[in-house]
Amino acid sequence: MRIAVDAMGGDFGPRVTVDGALRAAADFQVEILLVGVEDIVKKEFDRLPRTRARITIVEAPEAIGMGEGLFSFRKKARSSIRVGTQLLKDGAADAFVSTGNTAAVVYISRKVLGAMEGVDKPALALLVSSLHGLTLLIDVGANANCRPQDLKQFAVMGRAFMESALGRTDPRVGLMSIGEEAGKGNDLTKDAFQLLSAAPVRFIGNIEGKDLFSGKADVIVSDGFTGNVALKVSEGVVETMLALGRHEITKNVLAKIGLFLMKRNLKKAFKRLDYAETGGALLLGLQGVCIIGHGRSNPVAVRNAIRLARDFVANRVQDRIRAEIGRAGQATGGL
Amino acid sequence: MRIAVDAMGGDFGPRVTVDGALRAAADFQVEILLVGVEDIVKKEFDRLPRTRARITIVEAPEAIGMGEGLFSFRKKARSSIRVGTQLLKDGAADAFVSTGNTAAVVYISRKVLGAMEGVDKPALALLVSSLHGLTLLIDVGANANCRPQDLKQFAVMGRAFMESALGRTDPRVGLMSIGEEAGKGNDLTKDAFQLLSAAPVRFIGNIEGKDLFSGKADVIVSDGFTGNVALKVSEGVVETMLALGRHEITKNVLAKIGLFLMKRNLKKAFKRLDYAETGGALLLGLQGVCIIGHGRSNPVAVRNAIRLARDFVANRVQDRIRAEIGRAGQATGGL
Repeated sequence: MRIAVDAMGGDFGPRVTVDGALRAAADFQVEILLVGVEDIVKKEFDRLPRTRARITIVEAPEAIGMGEGLFSFRKKARSSIRVGTQLLKDGAADAFVSTGNTAAVVYISRKVLGAMEGVDKPALALLVSSLHGLTLLIDVGANANCRPQDLKQFAVMGRAFMESALGRTDPRVGLMSIGEEAGKGNDLTKDAFQLLSAAPVRFIGNIEGKDLFSGKADVIVSDGFTGNVALKVSEGVVETMLALGRHEITKNVLAKIGLFLMKRNLKKAFKRLDYAETGGALLLGLQGVCIIGHGRSNPVAVRNAIRLARDFVANRVQDRIRAEIGRAGQATGGL
Repeated sequence: MRIAVDAMGGDFGPRVTVDGALRAAADFQVEILLVGVEDIVKKEFDRLPRTRARITIVEAPEAIGMGEGLFSFRKKARSSIRVGTQLLKDGAADAFVSTGNTAAVVYISRKVLGAMEGVDKPALALLVSSLHGLTLLIDVGANANCRPQDLKQFAVMGRAFMESALGRTDPRVGLMSIGEEAGKGNDLTKDAFQLLSAAPVRFIGNIEGKDLFSGKADVIVSDGFTGNVALKVSEGVVETMLALGRHEITKNVLAKIGLFLMKRNLKKAFKRLDYAETGGALLLGLQGVCIIGHGRSNPVAVRNAIRLARDFVANRVQDRIRAEIGRAGQATGGL
């Protein structure tokens, strides 16, 4: 299996991505294509211990910055993201992993690879660690404006992923809304509720924001705007709680000792909520396997994003999504 | 000043609301009208220490349950919420405070009192404690479907509240979206961005979910669906973190000692995020002052919700909102 890795991605660039890619190559027996500015990537590569893993550097002379907008990045015809997705398209790689600019990866991969037949809007899905295992939130930002049928397609794709990649049998699908009864929500979720009730998924109805981490659903369907806000709010709350905790605790010596005694256990607890463990976000419904890791990824997180890509390919998730989208379309005369 | 209190509201009913109302009457020199089923309210009242405060019980033979939906509660013509808002309408009370069913208070108060002139959609606003003081999030659930001009009205009302009730000079107004640049967001926020840029408020542009608690904006404008999801997600994250922390910590004796040593400081830290401190949500743009406290309110939280109502009336927030809505309407030829 060959996995193309965007070496220029992430907040820390090649220093972190090359390290993570080499770890993945050693741990998972995958071949790695490091896509980026050759001189820079080579320098990082040479800095690291020699490996027997199969690593190839693929030249991409341009890099897209984390803060760069659409008008800027779409002009870069030879960026690492463009070259990496083209490797997928040409069959030279089985998956593409980037910790770079999410908007750029979403835009370019859609453009280069296109959507799967029967899918109108490829969606960005994220595995979040809940109290009782992993929950897939789809969409987390690829599609700010959605129609009810888009949410239905997200549900079908999310179900296919959870079954084939995670072995979750007949996963429970919830609709992100504001109240549990069928009549609650906005115009979009009310219509989507009807479609989901008739869809070939185990629809458990509306769920609320508080259930994002409760494990009540295996797949949570949302338009990309709401999903992204939900995700960013949860990141903000964790940061705020930690900041508040630190602020109060450093004021008091007994509390400091207390924190010292608890540290190992607290770390263990919060590790479960850490993006680095689950690997990153998945683009579902695309003609190709694309994984987008968090920009703040360290080498372990990059390694885990590559593991997620390997599992995606090894479990033939794409075939499963294609099959279920096809079946759902037949059942209802077009999704 | 006379404040009507929904004695039947909240998860714990009169046992908590009557206690909280009596505390408020003693602490804030306000006259209280306890609205509810007379026998039950009287019994709770008699259980508590005698007070010199002016308390009147107003009979309302029906109560609306916390989980009751629209089809059920709108039939109850003599519920405590209906009777309480009618007291406002008749001028017999200056404000109405409920810790009851939020959907019921929103629906009934709009129906009984109506919207202020120039306001299309009265909105539910909540003061959240950020790292640097209080931020007003508006709307948190009264209006699941909004138009761009609704968001503009929310901004004007939010500004008026923050200035008149909290003395915040020229508060910074942010728009909840998914990316900071003007072009980011969904159709609604993109159009609202244009309107807000021209509105008589200090518009600081888009903010992201992570800024809900960062103190970056004084007022955060959102449609009620997104605002409600954001709020519920943040509640869920706090609960999940506490549960995960407890789970790991009770496994280890050193960590337990650590927790014991930190407890007082942790409580102090999290108190700043506690709804009980700020009092509750405000209905802005209504012809009357309505405060909705959290269903889980304890007596202190009920007392603080009444304090919020008193401040709202004492600071003439309604007049200020009316004036600013009028001015904004004139400036742009109708909001």
